Formats: sequence, C-alpha cells, structure tokens
Amino acid sequence: MKKLVILGSTGSIGTNTLDIVSKFPAKFHVIGMTAGTNVDKLEEQVRTFGPALVAMSDEAAAQQLRVRCKGLPTKVLGGAEGLVQTATMPKADLVISAIVGGAGLLPTLAAIKAGKSIALANKEPMVMAGRLMQEEARKANVRIFPVDSEHSALFQSMEGHRMADIRRLILTASGGPLWDLTTEQMKDVTPEEALQHPNWKMGPKITIDSATLMNKGLEIVEARWLFDIPASQIEVLIHRESIIHSLVEYSDRSVIAQLGLPDMRTPIAYAMNYPERVPLDLPSLNLAEIGRLSFCAPDDARFPCLRFGYEALTTGGTMPAVLNAANEIAVQAFLDRRIGFLGIAATIRRTMDAHIPREILTLEDALQADVWARGHASGIVEVLSPPSAVVH
Amino acid sequence: MKKLVILGSTGSIGTNTLDIVSKFPAKFHVIGMTAGTNVDKLEEQVRTFGPALVAMSDEAAAQQLRVRCKGLPTKVLGGAEGLVQTATMPKADLVISAIVGGAGLLPTLAAIKAGKSIALANKEPMVMAGRLMQEEARKANVRIFPVDSEHSALFQSMEGHRMADIRRLILTASGGPLWDLTTEQMKDVTPEEALQHPNWKMGPKITIDSATLMNKGLEIVEARWLFDIPASQIEVLIHRESIIHSLVEYSDRSVIAQLGLPDMRTPIAYAMNYPERVPLDLPSLNLAEIGRLSFCAPDDARFPCLRFGYEALTTGGTMPAVLNAANEIAVQAFLDRRIGFLGIAATIRRTMDAHIPREILTLEDALQADVWARGHASGIVEVLSPPSAVVH
Repeated sequence: MKKLVILGSTGSIGTNTLDIVSKFPAKFHVIGMTAGTNVDKLEEQVRTFGPALVAMSDEAAAQQLRVRCKGLPTKVLGGAEGLVQTATMPKADLVISAIVGGAGLLPTLAAIKAGKSIALANKEPMVMAGRLMQEEARKANVRIFPVDSEHSALFQSMEGHRMADIRRLILTASGGPLWDLTTEQMKDVTPEEALQHPNWKMGPKITIDSATLMNKGLEIVEARWLFDIPASQIEVLIHRESIIHSLVEYSDRSVIAQLGLPDMRTPIAYAMNYPERVPLDLPSLNLAEIGRLSFCAPDDARFPCLRFGYEALTTGGTMPAVLNAANEIAVQAFLDRRIGFLGIAATIRRTMDAHIPREILTLEDALQADVWARGHASGIVEVLSPPSAVVH
Repeated sequence: MKKLVILGSTGSIGTNTLDIVSKFPAKFHVIGMTAGTNVDKLEEQVRTFGPALVAMSDEAAAQQLRVRCKGLPTKVLGGAEGLVQTATMPKADLVISAIVGGAGLLPTLAAIKAGKSIALANKEPMVMAGRLMQEEARKANVRIFPVDSEHSALFQSMEGHRMADIRRLILTASGGPLWDLTTEQMKDVTPEEALQHPNWKMGPKITIDSATLMNKGLEIVEARWLFDIPASQIEVLIHRESIIHSLVEYSDRSVIAQLGLPDMRTPIAYAMNYPERVPLDLPSLNLAEIGRLSFCAPDDARFPCLRFGYEALTTGGTMPAVLNAANEIAVQAFLDRRIGFLGIAATIRRTMDAHIPREILTLEDALQADVWARGHASGIVEVLSPPSAVVH
C-alpha cells in the first residue's frame, strides 16, 4: 500500500490522480492533500478519501473548510506552512506535485528534502530551480518521476536503455489551438479561442501555454534538469495529433517512443506505481483507425516563446525562473483580457531583456528572481494596450 | 572483445554484420563463418577477417575454397557437419544465425545446445521448431536476441518494462511492393516486380515474403515463441513507410515503439552488443522531413498468407514447419518462373490442407514435417500452370 500526498488535489492532475486511487484502493492510500481556494471540491475529496491532513494555501479558505469538516478526523491547515507540513508528512511514500505554477516550488522542495519520492506534474519548480531541485534530490537519494506526458514519454523511452547512449531527446508539440494562424490573426485571439486545445483536456494555464508554445519552452528546461541532458540535444517536433508523446534517439540511430491516446491517467499512473503498471480501462490506441500521423518543424517566427526556453537555459542562473514568472503574469493578464494574445510573448521578452541574471545557490535566489519578474511583468502588462478584441 | 560466429556470412545480414565488425575491431572478433555456395565472397571475407574456421554447406564449394585458401591459417570444413562444428566453436560468445530458410535450424539449435547466445536473424528456425528452440535455450541458459527489424523493435520496446504488463504486440508491415494491386493484377506480377521492395534492401527470399505478406505470417510465429506471447495478443498493422518498426502496448494503454530509418545495421548491432549500443554513423530519423506516417489494417482477402501464420500457430505442432517449407518451395518456384505470384499462396494453402499435424518432440519431428512439406509443395508446383507472364 503506497501512501500518497497530493499537492494540488482539486486541479486537473489532482482529480485524475484521485480517479486512479479510487480504482486501486488496495494499492494506494491518500494521507494528505492540498488545494488553493476550492473549498467545495476539497471538502468533497476529504469526505471521499479521508486523508489525515489537508492544507489550503488560502487561509480564509482553510478556515471555511475547517468549519465544514468539523467532526471529521481530517486535520485542516492553512497557508504556505500548512502546504509544507502536508508535503512532508512522515508517513508519505510519494508526493504528487501538481500545484499550478511557481507556487509548487516551496512544498515540492520541502518534500524532496524530507526524502519523499516525487511524481512531478508541474514543470514550474524544475524551470525555476532545476539545478537546485536535482541537487537536493541527489542528497536526499530521492527519485523524481515525471508526470508531464512528454517527459513521462521520454522517461518510459529511456527505461531499460543506457543514458550514455542517448543522442537526442525529441519533445513533440501539438502546436496548440492557434497553429494555423498568422501573426496578424493572432492579434485578435480571445481567451475562449486560445483555450480550445485540439487534443488535451487540461487546466487553463497550461492550455494557454500550449497555444503560445511556451509550454514547450518550459518543457525543454524541465527535460534538461530531469534527465541531465544539455539543451543542444533537446529538439521539438510539431505533431498535431498528440499520439507520439515524445521520442529518444540513441547513438545507433534507434529511436524509442511512447505513444497513446491523449489521457493524463496513463503517465500519472506510471509515476504512481513505477516500475509496475496498473491496468487502466482506457480506449486502446488504434493507428489503423487514426490513419495518419503528421509532423513538421516548429515555427519560431510565429511562436517565439519556444525559443525563449532555449535562450533562458543558455543564459542559465535565474533566467529560467524569470521566464516562468513573466509567463505566469502574462497568461493571467491574457485570461483576464488585460492584454492580447501577442502581449504574452511581448511581456516575457521584455522582462527577460530587463533581467540581469544571477546564479541560483539557494531557494531564496530563485524566489527573489520570481518576485522581481512578477513585478516587472505586471508593470509591462499595465502599459500594454488592451487587446482590440475586448474594446467594448 | 566478443568472439563471433556468423552463420550465413555472405548473405545480406552477414555482410551487414561484418560491416559493423570492421567499424568496431576492438569490440568484435569473427572466429567462424559459414556460407552456402558463394566461394568468391567467402574467400574475400576470410582474407579480410581471418576467422579460425569456416564451413560451406556445399561440399564442392568447400573443396574449391580450401584450394584457394591454401597457406592461410583458416580451416575450411564442408557439409552440414561442418556448419554444426563452426556453430559450436568452443570460444564463440555469440552466434549470428543468418542462414536463409530452414537450413539454419540444425546449426542454430546446435549452437544453443552448446550454450552460445544467439543473434537470430533468420526466422525460419523459430517458425519450424519454436517451442523446441526455446526449451533448449532455457535448458542451456542461453539468450536469443532478435535481429529481424520488427522483433528487434519489440525487444527494444520491452527492455525496462515488465512482460506481465504487456497487452498486445503490434508488428508493422510495409505491405510490400504489391500493396496497391488487386488480386486480378497480381496474377501477372513478375519476380522483378515483386523484388522491388519500397523501403528495405534485403535478400530475394525475404523480399518475396514481403510481397505476399507471408513474411508477417512467419513473424507472428516467431514473435509468439521469442516473447512467449499468445497469437491472440499479436496484431499486424500496415505502415507503408517502415519507420515505426513495431510497437508494444501495455496494460495502462501506454504504447512503446521503436522507430528509425530502415537500416538492418541498427538491429544487428543492438543484438551484437546488447545491452550497450554502439554509435553507428547512419542518417538520423527526421520526422519533420518525412512529414507523415500512414497506417491501415491488413487485407486478408488480397494477402491470405498473413492469415496462414495465425492458422499454423492455432493448429500448432508441425503445421508452422509445413507452412514455412511450403512457402520456401513456392517462393523459389516463383523466382524460377515456374509458378505465378498467386501460385505461392495456393501452394501453401494446399500443402497445409493436406498436412496431418503432429506434435514436435524432437528436432527430427520438425525436419520430417519440413521434408514432407517440401515434397508435397513441389508436387503442387509441378501441376500448377506456368504464369501467364512467362509464356514465351
């Protein structure tokens, strides 16, 4: 019986994780959960899974939940300290790190230091402080299992093969909902349009990241640290159908890939039960029915965010954390209709240009860069014109 | 330094193997080789690689080679006994089994019994006596590494994953050079046309097997025994571009596949140097350049030979050996213009229908079925009308 803590249990990855838990009650037991502000959903999850401890980052929400869960054996904590306490529960075997954005860094790093294995679903901690995360994982002798579908694909395509034989990692990208638009057409894209992902059902932040291809830029950084492979050996391939989730080329030119219908439950379950798989009653991949898979090269002119990922890695130090923070601010501003779609890349570009990178030696270095970039990016957002589409 | 014996060194797989040996002289040393009748090529190989022992199945050819190699330190043997002696050389670490057709069974089985690891490039021994081969391999604690590109792909897609989690094996098939023809059009196909494989450069026997899809029928049988997976869990997928070499689906619906440009040196080198890879200076797979991969279901009406493979497995016992022998006779008759293209399937069908299957308990049972089927099939070939295309 594996004892799980789920950081971000009310989000898309969190609920999928609980779906798997509910199907294999003999294998998994949830002892801790955290959420941000969604009291209704967390209450429901507490009542279903009966964890010993839950935490909400929002103190007011925690207080509300505490009242609602009176009489239940579950303890409710609030704030950042509550998250860390839940992430480091002494009995936890595996921590599912699925908090959206940079907020996941602190509790995830705390879990690593406490010696917990990590199923890493949010890429931001790796982007913000990848070197630090891996150093701490080495020190604590902890494994970090990727949950992101592309990184899970790379991980599955490396199992049983020698890291020393790897020649290239090839991350596939769907191209997102706006792949066929010209830059001119992108000007007027609304949040509703950008949220229409062709293949994956995901949360709003990551769906917008797919539309800008920033998601792939962040994934390059994540892959670099997860697998200790230099950026020069990491490539991106546009693959509209999202069937091949990523590929690894070896020195003999053999390429191993992981495929499947897009469903996050497969990579989540693999990370949860590694090295054994659990039988999931999902539709099987039928390539004869799909008929064809298509591929093309990325387009840096229309989708500059992908290149930002490479650039941040090359610069190193605090730059990836700045990239990530500026992106979070810009995406939220776009979702709030405060800037247009093209404003996302512009905000990131300007924030990166203004940043003087430093080395990351401690968590504080990463968090400081994050805070600076959020401040700077929100300044840029304020002066950017509102998008034409929302001029009422 | 791995000491190799190559059974069938002058064929397509044999020469590719030697190409790899010549690139990694510090890793591999060829101590034995065998060939059928090609004295010129074997002499050249003897002079280049200096093996201690060579054998030719044709006694007259062996005598000729003996004269030509006078003064060289290489010993030349002849006949079936010579092949067995070479296959079981005490110093050999790995035997590359690449003799075309059923002739490979005897020396390959001898090598297994002598405790040699096998790189199996010819599928016929597994088709003729798969259960026996595996029993002997278990007894001798010997591993059999597949070289066939599809089986190497399956093998590479299983490494690092649990056999217990496998749900399906999916063998890909190019469909061969005649995929787009109607049955009516196949009547007049010449050996030249059937030898034009769209993707792979291979020997004539296996190229004709690709044209009839019998190759895939034989591969199903091979896969069944190599991986101990029942036929009901083995599927075939037509994939014209031969880029995905085969796929394995696991219980969580994750599919692992091996891809690459079609070049036999990759699977050969993998079997030679397992579990490590050697860097091969071959062109890299560039999916963006290829643009698309296509897939469809096989067509049993136009290509009945595929179904014969399943049928032979279901019947069991001597039936797969009969299937294989009848096919060898029919393919040779087609290459000799004694029967038409459709005569191949007809000859196999009639031979299988006439066969009363028995269990295979010893090698002799398999060889007897083989001999019977060759006799029966050549009788059928004789009465079949000559193909219209060669009525001069």
